[in-house]
Amino acid sequence: MVVHVDAVTICGTDLHILKGDVPTVEPGRILGHEAVGTVVEVGVGVRTLAAGDRVLVSCITSCGRCSYCRQGRYGQCLGGGGWILGHLIDGTQAQYVRVPFAETSTHRLTDQITDEEALMVADTLPTAYEVGVLAGRVGPGQSVVVVGAGPIGLAAVLTARLFSPAVLAVVDLAESRLAAARGAGATHTIDARSDVVAQVKALTDGLGADVAIEAVGIAPTFETCVEMVRPGGHVANVGVHGKPATLHLERDWIRDLTITTGLVDTRTTPTLLRMVERGQLDVAQLVTHRFDLEAFDEAYEVFADAGHSGALKVVLTAGTGQVP
Amino acid sequence: MVVHVDAVTICGTDLHILKGDVPTVEPGRILGHEAVGTVVEVGVGVRTLAAGDRVLVSCITSCGRCSYCRQGRYGQCLGGGGWILGHLIDGTQAQYVRVPFAETSTHRLTDQITDEEALMVADTLPTAYEVGVLAGRVGPGQSVVVVGAGPIGLAAVLTARLFSPAVLAVVDLAESRLAAARGAGATHTIDARSDVVAQVKALTDGLGADVAIEAVGIAPTFETCVEMVRPGGHVANVGVHGKPATLHLERDWIRDLTITTGLVDTRTTPTLLRMVERGQLDVAQLVTHRFDLEAFDEAYEVFADAGHSGALKVVLTAGTGQVP
Amino acid sequence: MVVHVDAVTICGTDLHILKGDVPTVEPGRILGHEAVGTVVEVGVGVRTLAAGDRVLVSCITSCGRCSYCRQGRYGQCLGGGGWILGHLIDGTQAQYVRVPFAETSTHRLTDQITDEEALMVADTLPTAYEVGVLAGRVGPGQSVVVVGAGPIGLAAVLTARLFSPAVLAVVDLAESRLAAARGAGATHTIDARSDVVAQVKALTDGLGADVAIEAVGIAPTFETCVEMVRPGGHVANVGVHGKPATLHLERDWIRDLTITTGLVDTRTTPTLLRMVERGQLDVAQLVTHRFDLEAFDEAYEVFADAGHSGALKVVLTAGTGQVP
Amino acid sequence: MVVHVDAVTICGTDLHILKGDVPTVEPGRILGHEAVGTVVEVGVGVRTLAAGDRVLVSCITSCGRCSYCRQGRYGQCLGGGGWILGHLIDGTQAQYVRVPFAETSTHRLTDQITDEEALMVADTLPTAYEVGVLAGRVGPGQSVVVVGAGPIGLAAVLTARLFSPAVLAVVDLAESRLAAARGAGATHTIDARSDVVAQVKALTDGLGADVAIEAVGIAPTFETCVEMVRPGGHVANVGVHGKPATLHLERDWIRDLTITTGLVDTRTTPTLLRMVERGQLDVAQLVTHRFDLEAFDEAYEVFADAGHSGALKVVLTAGTGQVP
Repeated sequence: MVVHVDAVTICGTDLHILKGDVPTVEPGRILGHEAVGTVVEVGVGVRTLAAGDRVLVSCITSCGRCSYCRQGRYGQCLGGGGWILGHLIDGTQAQYVRVPFAETSTHRLTDQITDEEALMVADTLPTAYEVGVLAGRVGPGQSVVVVGAGPIGLAAVLTARLFSPAVLAVVDLAESRLAAARGAGATHTIDARSDVVAQVKALTDGLGADVAIEAVGIAPTFETCVEMVRPGGHVANVGVHGKPATLHLERDWIRDLTITTGLVDTRTTPTLLRMVERGQLDVAQLVTHRFDLEAFDEAYEVFADAGHSGALKVVLTAGTGQVP
Repeated sequence: MVVHVDAVTICGTDLHILKGDVPTVEPGRILGHEAVGTVVEVGVGVRTLAAGDRVLVSCITSCGRCSYCRQGRYGQCLGGGGWILGHLIDGTQAQYVRVPFAETSTHRLTDQITDEEALMVADTLPTAYEVGVLAGRVGPGQSVVVVGAGPIGLAAVLTARLFSPAVLAVVDLAESRLAAARGAGATHTIDARSDVVAQVKALTDGLGADVAIEAVGIAPTFETCVEMVRPGGHVANVGVHGKPATLHLERDWIRDLTITTGLVDTRTTPTLLRMVERGQLDVAQLVTHRFDLEAFDEAYEVFADAGHSGALKVVLTAGTGQVP
Repeated sequence: MVVHVDAVTICGTDLHILKGDVPTVEPGRILGHEAVGTVVEVGVGVRTLAAGDRVLVSCITSCGRCSYCRQGRYGQCLGGGGWILGHLIDGTQAQYVRVPFAETSTHRLTDQITDEEALMVADTLPTAYEVGVLAGRVGPGQSVVVVGAGPIGLAAVLTARLFSPAVLAVVDLAESRLAAARGAGATHTIDARSDVVAQVKALTDGLGADVAIEAVGIAPTFETCVEMVRPGGHVANVGVHGKPATLHLERDWIRDLTITTGLVDTRTTPTLLRMVERGQLDVAQLVTHRFDLEAFDEAYEVFADAGHSGALKVVLTAGTGQVP
Repeated sequence: MVVHVDAVTICGTDLHILKGDVPTVEPGRILGHEAVGTVVEVGVGVRTLAAGDRVLVSCITSCGRCSYCRQGRYGQCLGGGGWILGHLIDGTQAQYVRVPFAETSTHRLTDQITDEEALMVADTLPTAYEVGVLAGRVGPGQSVVVVGAGPIGLAAVLTARLFSPAVLAVVDLAESRLAAARGAGATHTIDARSDVVAQVKALTDGLGADVAIEAVGIAPTFETCVEMVRPGGHVANVGVHGKPATLHLERDWIRDLTITTGLVDTRTTPTLLRMVERGQLDVAQLVTHRFDLEAFDEAYEVFADAGHSGALKVVLTAGTGQVP
């Protein structure tokens, strides 16, 4: 299926690729794995979508037939899908994008959701929700700590709130991001330079958090997450890591821990879209900067310089009237 | 409650204590956290047990009232229980043992189970079953690898079979232990000196095992377990570790892994006792050596020298007619 | 343990008893299974509570030792507990009440929760939450219908919201109760005299609700609940029934339904108390009438005549300074 | 995809259709929803199957794209699948069958499984396993009762054993079927004319079974299943019912029951095939009669007259060398 790109965003992973951290990306590859667009043409096997449909292009492509897809584990697709857009094939940061396995890799949109809102459900929200909140088994009355208040961390705050934790604390270095976390519903914020574990224990009953969600991607934050959870606690790693971490089994073999890692499957995308439509998830707050589709260089600069620009998600939009 | 010890065994943990690895054990402490015995006297709060009852003394003591006990997580008891026998208070390697919180920490035995059989359910079987098989979520048709074929590893084989995995492979250095594993029902055995990960992949579909159970307690075997599981796989750590391990998050953040650790809760003890009674679990094969209760020194020597003696579990029995 | 009753309420079940519907209640029995009070005296086996402690007396008594209690299924206690207060032994509608198995059947209260708030957690909230919301597996984005907007139905609305359903509809005959349901957070209300199933389908995608919670206790409402759920849906029965219902298996064998029934276990009571303390559950709205402890006759009249009085929960309070 | 039928069987549902019980089947429809065959021709959208492949044609067709298929609930497919073969479109009791949505509705077979074995996995085994054993949450050490020892009931016995229940009792009227149940691994058999509930309680601890699996499809057996389970027990209905049943809520509202119904999804088919290949499931015992594909009339007669013929599953095989 070929889709005209109406709106597109940049992911932290795209920055990693530009730095050369993802060697499977070949030079010349068009990046981008998140888009909202309009269907231009469908292949012969596509029955449930047609030219003119407005769709969300998901960050995960699913063949729909392999053993992993049949379990809803689309991120691990063995049939040619998984994370391929802007990685193994050309992606969405373009005027048009070809999407394989279209029927199981895109989602038709209603007019109750804006392009910007839908874009947040292409990768950010399902990643935080599936790999963080659901894998961590957040539940009512629990104490949850999110480490890292970038777009994924904030999306973890928004989606953790769906389960009504009693404590929802956020750890970050930047006060501006901690303020954003409070705006998203964090009950407490913690400066990452302080004794984070001690602060978490003070917020709980001295035993630590029920769930820690790692949304940074470096060893020290992961290790802090493991240390801050109580016996029986969960650590859900969402961060993309470039180096190993140390697991203190000499301390933790006895503590009944559950540690999970994962790539998003986007199996919750239909549910998340519905909740955004109904006003249950205010995702607009994640978008801080807006550009025309031509202004990619500037958008990348602003996004890469989040420390100064305060950028969370940036959105690039095609001019109107461009769809043939 | 005071219990006359009729039969008792030695745990690998007792060897660790003797080496000084468990600093919370004070000098002079009577060791031992597994026993079958006869109730001699009960305290005023005990209603459901009486002198003369034959009971299994569990390795875990449970107050029955704290938040962890109320969740069935007795190993993490906050009310004075947990692993205390032969650790924080005197244990079972004696003629008599005092058992606190008796009603929630011992199990009355029927005459359909022998002392030796019941002893295997004091610690070995529930540890392997709860921390290995259940935490690892073993299921029908899966591929399961147990690393380490000591008593806990063999108990993991016996209890994993309850869920009918299609592949149940065991890794160890000693051919005698691999033979014992085959006797316990392993479908494949792997020499730990070989390329274990490659062999596991060859036994599965090239993707790795569904579940790996670590039953050794050192970093290299843990790290091998993490490497050998497929995307979406589970690693259940049962081994008691003295040092940290390396977690290759740069490889594994994307692989949908679940890693669990834990201390046994003995919440499955009643079920395991019933299955032993009905002949569903042949635990007799775990006992290799038998001694009189006086022969503790010899029993410890044989048990500590498993490499030569081939010892799995050793059982020490009190002479008959000693119960007052 | 003997508890001075500071505040007590009346349950719909008490009305059933007075009508003679519960033959296991002997004449002369003191009714009541919900109270907040002050400990006056403890038995020799009680260690973690003492005279002067302020406690919630739970509707369920738990021996803490039987196979059901060990699974957290206290309502089915085989060791002398279960629903016994105001049923098999004298209850809480008195100045003092004796509570057996005190440590596993009462909850110490902090000063962050009022007597009235805590009373709502004695029976109403855990019943709605455990038997309705949790048994029905309510989840984010789902469509949930609560049939019956009495105290239990409203508590189901309050606790279902903890999981952020997208649709939370309530069915009742009385407009005043539907108004209360909207106040409690219902997204839609449906007049029970209308075509309820058609309205539910119109609110969903034509397929029906994900979860239906029965909070009335008669066959027609139960049957409507079964009819209104979609393929794969859940029906959680909370109502106390006096007659059989018809299950249309000729229609429903193929529809992947899950139907649950249950008595509350009060295993979630500590969590619910914490959420009330933190302001996550506004239970004050359930209390409509207040009386002095002497005014039991009047309180029963008002409660029994809910159609006219608009009563939800009534609270009776002892005068101050009465605790010896 | 067009498949040459190599082997086919008859289902109890086919008899219901012939009696006129399934009005959605139009006159002239070719029946049959189970087959093993050889692919003759594939449509343009089919990539992972090719002419010459040996495949299992599943009783459930899955579009692979709708919300139900994306949850693995293929039986409830909204996209044109579900149970359609031999129902809404022509089925497998023919020389050739056209299979829509081929890639998500058939399974390629290895040469480690025979046609007869694979045929048992077209409907019988996954139905008993998914709708009976898995929905009923059978687990190690439990007591399980299967009511009805026809092909589905026997398949429930075979697949329940995968979870090592301690008691696995079977109820039927015919001694020949009870003998078959013992051969399949039942630990106890019960004559349906006796006091079944009393016998079940005698086999358990007086409280009833953990799980009851209904495999007959009439109200009395369903009602007996509900009565025989203990508090907290599960009733998994597998039988196809033509009439309503009575649910004794006046007795059961308090008993913590879970009752499930369902159509098979065939999501476990790949796992079941693998277990048959490895010899973990001896399904050959389900086949009692064999015919040539031309002998359909005789095969139907024998199958319909199971009381006299002792037929369980009948298999009809095409002559060799017929595939073009």
